[in-house]
Amino acid sequence: MSVEKLVEGILSGKRRELARLISLIEDEDAIASEVLSRLYKNTGHAKIIGVTGPPGSGKSTLVTRITTEYRKREQSVGIICVDPSSPFSGGALLGDRIRMQEHSLDDEVFVRSMGTRGHLGGLSRATSDAVRAVDAFGKDVILVETVGAGQSEVEVIEIAHTVIVTDVPGSGDDIQAIKAGIMEIADIFVVNKSDLPGADKKVTEINAMLDTDQKMGTWRPPVILTNGRTGEGITELVDMIEEHFAYLASSGQLEARGLRRSREELEQLMEYKLTRELLSTLRGRPEYENAIREIALRREDPYTVAERLITEFLVKCRE
Amino acid sequence: MSVEKLVEGILSGKRRELARLISLIEDEDAIASEVLSRLYKNTGHAKIIGVTGPPGSGKSTLVTRITTEYRKREQSVGIICVDPSSPFSGGALLGDRIRMQEHSLDDEVFVRSMGTRGHLGGLSRATSDAVRAVDAFGKDVILVETVGAGQSEVEVIEIAHTVIVTDVPGSGDDIQAIKAGIMEIADIFVVNKSDLPGADKKVTEINAMLDTDQKMGTWRPPVILTNGRTGEGITELVDMIEEHFAYLASSGQLEARGLRRSREELEQLMEYKLTRELLSTLRGRPEYENAIREIALRREDPYTVAERLITEFLVKCRE
Repeated sequence: MSVEKLVEGILSGKRRELARLISLIEDEDAIASEVLSRLYKNTGHAKIIGVTGPPGSGKSTLVTRITTEYRKREQSVGIICVDPSSPFSGGALLGDRIRMQEHSLDDEVFVRSMGTRGHLGGLSRATSDAVRAVDAFGKDVILVETVGAGQSEVEVIEIAHTVIVTDVPGSGDDIQAIKAGIMEIADIFVVNKSDLPGADKKVTEINAMLDTDQKMGTWRPPVILTNGRTGEGITELVDMIEEHFAYLASSGQLEARGLRRSREELEQLMEYKLTRELLSTLRGRPEYENAIREIALRREDPYTVAERLITEFLVKCRE
Repeated sequence: MSVEKLVEGILSGKRRELARLISLIEDEDAIASEVLSRLYKNTGHAKIIGVTGPPGSGKSTLVTRITTEYRKREQSVGIICVDPSSPFSGGALLGDRIRMQEHSLDDEVFVRSMGTRGHLGGLSRATSDAVRAVDAFGKDVILVETVGAGQSEVEVIEIAHTVIVTDVPGSGDDIQAIKAGIMEIADIFVVNKSDLPGADKKVTEINAMLDTDQKMGTWRPPVILTNGRTGEGITELVDMIEEHFAYLASSGQLEARGLRRSREELEQLMEYKLTRELLSTLRGRPEYENAIREIALRREDPYTVAERLITEFLVKCRE
């Protein structure tokens, strides 16, 4: 499919072209960069919401419920499910199929899974590009759901305006440890599965943690009790997302975040492109392969070799 | 502390200097690179074992038990605990304190935690550097434990010779999804907490999954039943680690891995250094800050700006 056809298709709301672009993004196809570059000026309109939390905390159900609520409010929705540990992509996950069922006849909802597809490092970049594609496609709200704990969760902040961290009553010690790192990224806490014993206790615990947080800014993350099964608390949650977005806008943080994201993205792109440029002059050349062998044999060290090759590369620009 | 003093201290087995170096690595201090560069030729002797798996699968206890078993075999041990979601480092975690207790009087065991310490992207690199430091320090075996699921787990492969993936009987659906991605990185599966109901069933399940794996090489990952509390299965597990290492050596994979790691490391270092070089010419300059503003306002797109700035940078080398 040509760049032209993809750009036009996406801007005129064709789902097939959007799905195709996301596949190209996952494959790191050069066409994807070109299309994204062309679409860039049509982005920046969507409200981006990250949903993260430990496995089993009901993120998928919650995302489905939030979608239903936004559809009631006549907002269109895009859903991106990120699972760094899954080799699946393109809607193969169980969670997607369930969501598909509920929203499959609704043209105003677009759902997509992103797995690792073999290569890992690129998932965070691919997710950010996919969100951008859905933004250009015209969805009002984009929900980014990340499975599991760790680095990938924290990378959600860089994409999202509002980060929702989910938890369930009575989760154990390991979860407690996770909390420490996740604390800082939450704009809204959700204690899901409110019908389980210990739900109120969990809310109290999180509030207590928040009360001792020294680094908190002017937004104090609320803790909301929900039930993905019955829908309890979902209206309140969506109201809170809207409130947080209004807070970002009025406090000047929306603008500051926009600048920060633009900087990060530009610098990541430059890093990627410049490194590719350097490596294209090195890979496959006998001197380069030999240097790697010397490093493996501990006859050279990688730090010294890296300095030397970069100097040579930069000097070569003179020729 | 001077580069000289750190290098000498570490090569002569001083724990204080090793701990100091790891802190410098975490802080991305320039001295750390210099020390590591000097130590590089003294590395490559340690057997590096990654231990990963979902929260609550008893990784910490398992690591302690493996350590005890290796100490019985008169091997010295280094332990690096990686927790991408924790802001703590330097041995502040509960798991460490427990380990410290058991091995704290043993000079042949070195334990260290690595958390995010505020910045995230650098954790994987910092872990790899810390393992190298412990290797140069002279430990025979280095255990790298990663908490949680996701990208960080998979990054362990790049460091470890042998990857142990832990699981527990009766873990739920979300865990099942994690399994898909983790399958490929495991050299040995451990079903821990063998006294829980469903332990044998879990072993059968994993074996069944392995039997349908199309991409498997000549090493068929064994599934071992252990009990971190009683020590059951630990001797067998350590025997299996040794067997896997012997397999790597005899099949030529040890050498191939060494080359791959050297290549990856060299390329990562070049990426890091070259990007730093580029950014030092840009950051803070009014034209650069202005370009970022134009991107945020969607009047320019980051792809085009990245291309332009890189071209300008490379041309500048001519002047």
